[in-house]
Amino acid sequence: MPILVMKFGGTSVADLARIENAAAKVRAEVERGYDVIVIVSAMSGKTNELVKWVNDTSAFYDAREYDAVVSSGENVTAGLMALRLQEMGVSARSWQGWQVPINTTSQHGSARFVSIPRAHIDAKFAEGFKVAVVAGFQGVSTEGRITTLGRGGSDTTAVAFAAAFDAVRCDIYTDVDGVYTTDPRISRKARKLDKISYEEMLELASLGAKVLQTRSVELAMRYKVRLRVLSSFEETDENSGTLVCDEEEIMESKVVSGVAHSRDEAKITLFTIEDRPGIAAAIFGPLADAGVNVDMIVQNISEKQLAEGHSEAVTDMTFSCPVDQVARAKRALDEARAAGKIGWGEMVIDTDVSKVSVVGIGMRSHAGVAARMFNALAAERVNIKVIATSEIKISVLIDRKYMELAVQTLHDAFSLESA
Amino acid sequence: MPILVMKFGGTSVADLARIENAAAKVRAEVERGYDVIVIVSAMSGKTNELVKWVNDTSAFYDAREYDAVVSSGENVTAGLMALRLQEMGVSARSWQGWQVPINTTSQHGSARFVSIPRAHIDAKFAEGFKVAVVAGFQGVSTEGRITTLGRGGSDTTAVAFAAAFDAVRCDIYTDVDGVYTTDPRISRKARKLDKISYEEMLELASLGAKVLQTRSVELAMRYKVRLRVLSSFEETDENSGTLVCDEEEIMESKVVSGVAHSRDEAKITLFTIEDRPGIAAAIFGPLADAGVNVDMIVQNISEKQLAEGHSEAVTDMTFSCPVDQVARAKRALDEARAAGKIGWGEMVIDTDVSKVSVVGIGMRSHAGVAARMFNALAAERVNIKVIATSEIKISVLIDRKYMELAVQTLHDAFSLESA
Repeated sequence: MPILVMKFGGTSVADLARIENAAAKVRAEVERGYDVIVIVSAMSGKTNELVKWVNDTSAFYDAREYDAVVSSGENVTAGLMALRLQEMGVSARSWQGWQVPINTTSQHGSARFVSIPRAHIDAKFAEGFKVAVVAGFQGVSTEGRITTLGRGGSDTTAVAFAAAFDAVRCDIYTDVDGVYTTDPRISRKARKLDKISYEEMLELASLGAKVLQTRSVELAMRYKVRLRVLSSFEETDENSGTLVCDEEEIMESKVVSGVAHSRDEAKITLFTIEDRPGIAAAIFGPLADAGVNVDMIVQNISEKQLAEGHSEAVTDMTFSCPVDQVARAKRALDEARAAGKIGWGEMVIDTDVSKVSVVGIGMRSHAGVAARMFNALAAERVNIKVIATSEIKISVLIDRKYMELAVQTLHDAFSLESA
Repeated sequence: MPILVMKFGGTSVADLARIENAAAKVRAEVERGYDVIVIVSAMSGKTNELVKWVNDTSAFYDAREYDAVVSSGENVTAGLMALRLQEMGVSARSWQGWQVPINTTSQHGSARFVSIPRAHIDAKFAEGFKVAVVAGFQGVSTEGRITTLGRGGSDTTAVAFAAAFDAVRCDIYTDVDGVYTTDPRISRKARKLDKISYEEMLELASLGAKVLQTRSVELAMRYKVRLRVLSSFEETDENSGTLVCDEEEIMESKVVSGVAHSRDEAKITLFTIEDRPGIAAAIFGPLADAGVNVDMIVQNISEKQLAEGHSEAVTDMTFSCPVDQVARAKRALDEARAAGKIGWGEMVIDTDVSKVSVVGIGMRSHAGVAARMFNALAAERVNIKVIATSEIKISVLIDRKYMELAVQTLHDAFSLESA
């Protein structure tokens, strides 16, 4: 039998009625002729309850015990889903991480997959079972301890199973009905995409489109897992949602597929720093150690040098990070300065910026995308503070108050409303 | 290090504050020099929530999935207890059933222990860990499926660990401070016992004193595990509570140790049944198959035969069972009659009876206990409907309205108020 992987997130299994609704979707796929592996999250709210108990018990908790407690939410859903399927006449069996076993590294709270042996689940399929319900977000270490995979872990579990079992597809059921050209809450012209390439989805995911976690898309791309995002709250069929796939499956793609945004960014500039080999490492090493997620980095020739003709080689360094990491970033830099590792003339922090990006595989072969983007923003008098580009995306930092305007302007400029 | 087993029930770990209180008791024992194995139940209410979800999902549920869901409550408590102990500076590690592993039979919902290998936990103690927190009520089958042990399972887990690890004692922390000569809610003269023998505790447990489950006392008796019952809501020390132990440890025991009661009993009499070999099996076989817990059984020569001088050999059979099993019992008997397997003249059901019992090892060597009991009841005009005896107990069925009177009368008659 061909194998299909279906994943249901927390809101899709929030109570018994929703579990029943999800089970009906599973049964429909069994009736279409698939052996199905279902990956489930904890009922929404349950994981937060468990996390709160852990935090209230112990401020600096042991990550092994955190994982042992927090993983129990998914186990409950897996058992209930198997029972509901049985009640519908579908032969199903639940699997906790250690039963499969889902072998992971020992990095508790952010473990990574080592292997997912097929033998036990294949044997159940061979016995005539039609569905294996697997608790997402968890695994087991070589020490026999329960591990969890970190944020978005259940999506990652689903993709890993799809790869291990050569599944025809991995369907991610969630509370939205697909991937859009931009956030529909910002632009009513946003259009659902039928297909999008891994590369584009990866840029959109990491740029703040919250549909799929970056890591699950990376894994899908590496193992060529066809990933589908669709709604668990609507009637769905084989053509619902958005398929995330290899670009070869997408016949004709537009130059730009979508406009992404990330609202709460900050920009930190260090003026007049010494321009020498190793200076970037001296700055970004301490930031990485402090857990700051540095995003865009731009190095300019120093304004001061241009203006005053400094004798030494000096430069200015600008980077962006999430607003809530600014205090941590400033402390890390101040400590490195106090330790004599770096020096600067002035530090300027701007916490009122947002990032807006256009993403599209078509950029590779089409010139002029950047020019069209900058012209469109200029026509609306949106000032660009920092620019960063990759092969298939162009991102700009702008004042936060212009963010919605910029998104709508760019959505129009690249005609994303029409397919 | 000597090993101590401590067990905390659902009300003793009902919330984070109570878990902290229980953890303080564990730390006190570590400071006394023990390596401690802590067995925990689910936070009170959690198991009922999980059971309700299972029942609401599936009326005739798969017991394997029931066990997978319901066992998760204990896992959460085990992790939280380990974290709380760590927070108090006590090195602790949690263990789920499959991690130890607690090997059981495959009878899901009422599994029995096969083996509890010491290696993994002993290795942790050798590493310097002071406490192993084990999720109670669960195990793992040879098929690698999670099992649960049925009612009172966590007490049984505690006793099994005490036996496997040669523990000096197994302390059962609960919401009462020990075992009493009778129910303190019925007689204000009830007195807490310092010690009680396994045999007496077994009779009291099976007679409706709800402090300990029968199975855990049986297991303690078989493996000579010294069992202590004490309160988790009071200050406790090495002399608190009641010690359940071998009778050799009890220097001088009274003739009667306690008066037990079971309120909601029913009495079923089948008049004028054929008196032939195999008739008892023909009656009680179907009842056992229907899951009726038959308790007392009395067979008389038939009243009818005495009165009328019947030609055939006929007899009357009386038995007792819990009131809520009467409908099931009647159906099973009616079906057996319809199938021609048994016949009777009349069935009389009395659902207004209670059982009162006196229990004591001293009975073995002291005559006259029954006479003293019957005289005391007769003096209060309490009519005895059925009598049953074992080596160390005498039970009577009486009208329910006299139950409290009978308990208080017997408590006085055997001078249980004074030690």
